[in-house]
Amino acid sequence: MKRRSFLKKTATVGAGTLAAGALAACSESPTDPNSGNFPTAGASTATGGGNTRPSVDLKMVTTWPKNFPGLGTRAEEMARDIELATNGRIRIRVYAADELVPALQAFDAVSQGNADIYHGPDYYWQGKHIMFNFYGAVPFGLSATEMTQWLQYGGGQELWDELAARFNVKPMLCNATGMQMGGWFNKEINSVEDFQGLKMRIPGFGGEIVTRMGGTPVTLPGGEIFLSLSQGNIDATEWIGPWNDLALGFYQAAEYYYTSAYHEPSASVCAGWNLDVWNDLDESERKIVEAIAEMHYARSLAEFNARNAGALRQLVNDHGVQLRQFPEEVMRALADVAADIAADMGRTDDISNRIYNSYMSTLSEVKEWSGVADEPYYAARRLSDKFGQAL
Amino acid sequence: MKRRSFLKKTATVGAGTLAAGALAACSESPTDPNSGNFPTAGASTATGGGNTRPSVDLKMVTTWPKNFPGLGTRAEEMARDIELATNGRIRIRVYAADELVPALQAFDAVSQGNADIYHGPDYYWQGKHIMFNFYGAVPFGLSATEMTQWLQYGGGQELWDELAARFNVKPMLCNATGMQMGGWFNKEINSVEDFQGLKMRIPGFGGEIVTRMGGTPVTLPGGEIFLSLSQGNIDATEWIGPWNDLALGFYQAAEYYYTSAYHEPSASVCAGWNLDVWNDLDESERKIVEAIAEMHYARSLAEFNARNAGALRQLVNDHGVQLRQFPEEVMRALADVAADIAADMGRTDDISNRIYNSYMSTLSEVKEWSGVADEPYYAARRLSDKFGQAL
Repeated sequence: MKRRSFLKKTATVGAGTLAAGALAACSESPTDPNSGNFPTAGASTATGGGNTRPSVDLKMVTTWPKNFPGLGTRAEEMARDIELATNGRIRIRVYAADELVPALQAFDAVSQGNADIYHGPDYYWQGKHIMFNFYGAVPFGLSATEMTQWLQYGGGQELWDELAARFNVKPMLCNATGMQMGGWFNKEINSVEDFQGLKMRIPGFGGEIVTRMGGTPVTLPGGEIFLSLSQGNIDATEWIGPWNDLALGFYQAAEYYYTSAYHEPSASVCAGWNLDVWNDLDESERKIVEAIAEMHYARSLAEFNARNAGALRQLVNDHGVQLRQFPEEVMRALADVAADIAADMGRTDDISNRIYNSYMSTLSEVKEWSGVADEPYYAARRLSDKFGQAL
Repeated sequence: MKRRSFLKKTATVGAGTLAAGALAACSESPTDPNSGNFPTAGASTATGGGNTRPSVDLKMVTTWPKNFPGLGTRAEEMARDIELATNGRIRIRVYAADELVPALQAFDAVSQGNADIYHGPDYYWQGKHIMFNFYGAVPFGLSATEMTQWLQYGGGQELWDELAARFNVKPMLCNATGMQMGGWFNKEINSVEDFQGLKMRIPGFGGEIVTRMGGTPVTLPGGEIFLSLSQGNIDATEWIGPWNDLALGFYQAAEYYYTSAYHEPSASVCAGWNLDVWNDLDESERKIVEAIAEMHYARSLAEFNARNAGALRQLVNDHGVQLRQFPEEVMRALADVAADIAADMGRTDDISNRIYNSYMSTLSEVKEWSGVADEPYYAARRLSDKFGQAL
């Protein structure tokens, strides 16, 4: 369903509550020459700054439970910021998973025009096209900041636009989890053989790795993992990182926390706009939306890193969690298998091939530069114990 | 000089040329309901989107030569984006160093209200307060993404606001260089003793490290370094990284390129606003400016990483540059000295102490989390050779 001219269709809808924040915000600015206009602004015209252009009410469907830390909460923050920055011209109502559509139908809802924006990781849509995995997470692939490098300076955004436009979607990065942990295990992993028969809750690309390693990936919704793990129905689970893992209490159901990050060196979350809705925005609004999405992408990475650090301390110090790393032999095997899977994806069709080669070109650049710059720096920073102590 | 109500003072100035871009941009939007207004918009009112609020013309003074890659160029881009996003309500003219004031007077110009915004690294203002170093670069300190963590989730921004407000400035991050290289040397560094008598062009905090290592730091403007190095007046120089270093041709004047990053794990560039000008913006405008600054901060890091990777290949493959790393013993000595200098700074006064402790608290968090998450990941990513090759 095409949705050109959404302005006409939605301009008169629901201007009340959501605009109140923007109004209050604006009236705090002593020099706003239009503050006197606020009380008389009608429901179908923009209220802030005296702009007479109709305001629009948009629906954002997310793949997260209500108030899900770092992801659902940030979708709400981003929506508020867009409303504030556009002086209420764009108002976005955020729906948790199942409030309007189930999590995994968010993409279709936006593609078909039943919602305006989705907020979720693009690997959920790998059934639509396998290369959406490359915009969600590639095991042993690009980190959150490296994704920005690929999208902005390696051709990644253009290819993403091309792929998503086939589904009437305009995609952009808006949220990152940063490095994710290897997961919670009740079985120690000392060699490649220990993956034989391993029953692990791990979806998508990571699950395919477990399959090729001889294990059995299991898909379970978040709410069922704890019980399944504590009853021994599964041997292991991955989730996100210490911040979110602590909240679900996995330390009470598993012996070992494998910190080895490999399957999601950050889940990239996409704000996917219905393309007609996106094209109906003016250039100034598109610039605002883009900047706010990128601001939240960077801030979310910072937030996850900050909160993961604190939660990891709690897990170890308060809950006695035993940290483990996969042996190098295991990590190498996982990486080889992941590379094979990624290459298989890249051979799917023409655009798969172009996305794959573009991604790998940036990854190769990154490994060279990071290998002389960032990685030795982080190692060197550990040489002195004098840093990091309070005066 | 206080500058409240700058709107009244500057509203009628210079609306012509700079607004043209925004006008052209807006008229490309087919559904903009106000596009018919453009031809009649007056010089003293905002032109885009039918907003009747007066537009303002602001002056941004930078510390960079005209078109300086990655820094001067990005200041221009940021100014254009702010103009576009505000529909021409905020128009910013960017001045290279010496066009309006010399580079090192940019801070005073903004503080005193002779310019509205500066674009430069805050360590330039260490003569105003020593702790501005912590918002520019700390050797062995926080990287570019880690700075966001400190500012947003570790209390760093509030402390920066407090420090800068003493000078009537509102500061924000807007540009990052990423990891900088150790520098160009005509003398090999094999031990701590090799720093004795070393004459090196390196300013600020890095220069103080060289002093305490027994060498002699030299301050030279960019244009004079090459000759001085090739004539043997100095033994070594640091500059930025491969992208900028290649442009200045240092490979023709030095034998070794020490890649060991340590003194600037990213130069953080500040957009420093005259506080009265900042407070005169409305909340929507402040949100826009903040988001665009943070977008450019993240993008600039990505751009430096991308271009540094390419330039490093050129230096090695086309110009036969020999890369070197400082031995571990030397790096440890440099780190110990840097920690002492940082602690000395932190003991200066009350706010120094609070900034130091806040910074080190984030650094300590970062080292813990990165030590189990990012650092092992980057190492593991190197275990398979299958990744990064084209299909």
